[in-house]
Amino acid sequence: MRIEYPHRHERFGAVRIHELTQVIEIDSGLGGAAEQAVIGGRRVHHVPATAINGIERRMAVVVPTKNERRKVIEGVLSGIPHDCTIVLVSASAREPIDRYGLETALLDDLASATGRTAVAVHQFDPGVAAAAAAGGLIDLAPDGAIAPGKGEAMVLAMAITETLGLDHVGFVDADNYIPGAVHEYTKSYAAGLHLATSAFAMVRISWQSKPKVTDGRLVFNRWGRTSQVTNHFLNLVLSTYTGFGTEVIKTGNSGEHAMSMELARRLRFAGGYAVEPFEFVEMFEQFGGAFASPHPEVNRSLIDVFQVETRNPHFHEDKGENHVSGMRTQALHALFHSKVCPDSVRAEICEFLEGEGAVQPGCEPRAETIYNGIVGLDSERFGRYLTKADTFRAFNR
Amino acid sequence: MRIEYPHRHERFGAVRIHELTQVIEIDSGLGGAAEQAVIGGRRVHHVPATAINGIERRMAVVVPTKNERRKVIEGVLSGIPHDCTIVLVSASAREPIDRYGLETALLDDLASATGRTAVAVHQFDPGVAAAAAAGGLIDLAPDGAIAPGKGEAMVLAMAITETLGLDHVGFVDADNYIPGAVHEYTKSYAAGLHLATSAFAMVRISWQSKPKVTDGRLVFNRWGRTSQVTNHFLNLVLSTYTGFGTEVIKTGNSGEHAMSMELARRLRFAGGYAVEPFEFVEMFEQFGGAFASPHPEVNRSLIDVFQVETRNPHFHEDKGENHVSGMRTQALHALFHSKVCPDSVRAEICEFLEGEGAVQPGCEPRAETIYNGIVGLDSERFGRYLTKADTFRAFNR
Repeated sequence: MRIEYPHRHERFGAVRIHELTQVIEIDSGLGGAAEQAVIGGRRVHHVPATAINGIERRMAVVVPTKNERRKVIEGVLSGIPHDCTIVLVSASAREPIDRYGLETALLDDLASATGRTAVAVHQFDPGVAAAAAAGGLIDLAPDGAIAPGKGEAMVLAMAITETLGLDHVGFVDADNYIPGAVHEYTKSYAAGLHLATSAFAMVRISWQSKPKVTDGRLVFNRWGRTSQVTNHFLNLVLSTYTGFGTEVIKTGNSGEHAMSMELARRLRFAGGYAVEPFEFVEMFEQFGGAFASPHPEVNRSLIDVFQVETRNPHFHEDKGENHVSGMRTQALHALFHSKVCPDSVRAEICEFLEGEGAVQPGCEPRAETIYNGIVGLDSERFGRYLTKADTFRAFNR
Repeated sequence: MRIEYPHRHERFGAVRIHELTQVIEIDSGLGGAAEQAVIGGRRVHHVPATAINGIERRMAVVVPTKNERRKVIEGVLSGIPHDCTIVLVSASAREPIDRYGLETALLDDLASATGRTAVAVHQFDPGVAAAAAAGGLIDLAPDGAIAPGKGEAMVLAMAITETLGLDHVGFVDADNYIPGAVHEYTKSYAAGLHLATSAFAMVRISWQSKPKVTDGRLVFNRWGRTSQVTNHFLNLVLSTYTGFGTEVIKTGNSGEHAMSMELARRLRFAGGYAVEPFEFVEMFEQFGGAFASPHPEVNRSLIDVFQVETRNPHFHEDKGENHVSGMRTQALHALFHSKVCPDSVRAEICEFLEGEGAVQPGCEPRAETIYNGIVGLDSERFGRYLTKADTFRAFNR
């Protein structure tokens, strides 16, 4: 892959957020060493196929699924590079049709046709919740059950990734119509993780465009409104601390993202759809320098956050306005309640949420659930219990 | 890439048409030897990245353009694997804005950022026509000008590919919204050309689905009507000769296809939109065994025609009903006038065209222009003239 190397970044304590960079070539061939060329003021970085493959071999690609259509999931799986380990976490219905059964049958077909490695669990399996509790993730399974929600699925998937002994974790949504986009996301994750100069690294995807049907024809929008709102408030926090206005954050809501397990095992995660924007909030809070950090080794190093604009449009199932508005408010709730959020930004959030009719006047946004993540995971014990769970499936392991 | 290996094929003389096969994994990793596994009755073939790359290094990927949007072309180019040589043949307007200038500027940027090789010409450049004439392609430039049309652009591109000394030529349309699909097409070309047991080989792409906006929402259709009509008549010809009904041909109109130059330099090509279906007609006529072949070496060997169903949907600019209906009738005209077309099929074609209102009663479909292709090309002379043409551009050569 050839990728533009970012010129500029914003720094908030240990957190280095690089400006958005673009994919130049999805496939840069098999030859050639790692190199940087400066062309017309642009730094273009060649990440050789061998370097990308080296990351892929140590990366889990997590596919959270929830009643997506079989053909769509099959396409998504076909786009994930072979050497990545697939981790499917399903919150799909099991009745009247066992959709989880359909999903694992797809994985079984793929794994036996290709020899590739995959693991699957169902999020609502009591045996999986028991494994989380046994592994020390007490808050993830408070009453013997893991709550529904994307953040919850992601924490579970990171515990599995840690137990598999892998070094990186990436996420791709199961509702993507374009297998080639999934392929490009994964290559971008690997390229970014390879380029990071720190062991603590994150890669977040921004889309070139997001096609939408408007008045019976396709329009390629650049940014969704939800992203604009989330990015605005995250940038506002950043500006308030640094004293300089910024628009550096373009990927606040990015569901498509990856990180090193070194970073993942030091972060808390929000439940539901607050999970992706909260990663920024959490990094600011823990590693921004405004508060003492529970992980001072990170502050002595830094966190490299890359933002990559892929070539493929993001073309996924339309879940309707409720879904999107839920994403937006959950993100702002989580930001509001963070101690890193300045009062001035809290006031603006309230104003915005009141305008949307999402809070009562007097504004006290709901506190989203924040999980301790996999800090303190006993992966040996978690793994031992997990393999006994009813819905646990492992292919070619 | 992992790809289903076809179980069945139809044979018409030297022409071996394999049934449609599916892409299993877009990226099968860097490791692993070529191997075939039989799973649940399916033969899955692993084509190693090194084998694919070996084909790519000897393949031109031709992008015929005609006033496509800049962003779309840029995406298409970013999806073509690095080691392929890009051949851009433009029929775009040069006034009031020089769109060819925009296109070559894109190529220039890409080539300098990546070091990749590309060549561009404008189809209506008198210097390019002069080169064709000087190279012996008399029928391509009858009056000092190359006619507009996709077939014409393709013949010109094949002459350039031959002059560059490359062994394979593949075509991708410039109006594709999904760079990842372009990437998958090219990988599929290389995989098919690698799997072919004959030096005479062709790979034709079929799409998993073709999204369309219907009643304000997206519908994923499996086959377009034009494809259905073209495939029906091509299969009918096949059935008439073999005596067995067949539906093996699924890629009659496939604009996305590739072939070995060993095959390309032995075929005639139709002008305009008849070009892709006419390739089948031409192979049947020359190598079906019903008539003496001008290239008996092919009949002593065989032509391997693979049909590959890619994972990505085909998601391109909607050119409207006129464009599609033109494609349909041109294909049928060319078939009608071929000596390989049985009278019974001619009668059905007439019936169909009359039903469409595309011919007068009494039916005499228009004869499409058939070019001799690059048979007899003097590539040294062609190349010498071409490099002097005003619009000729070469990058990193």
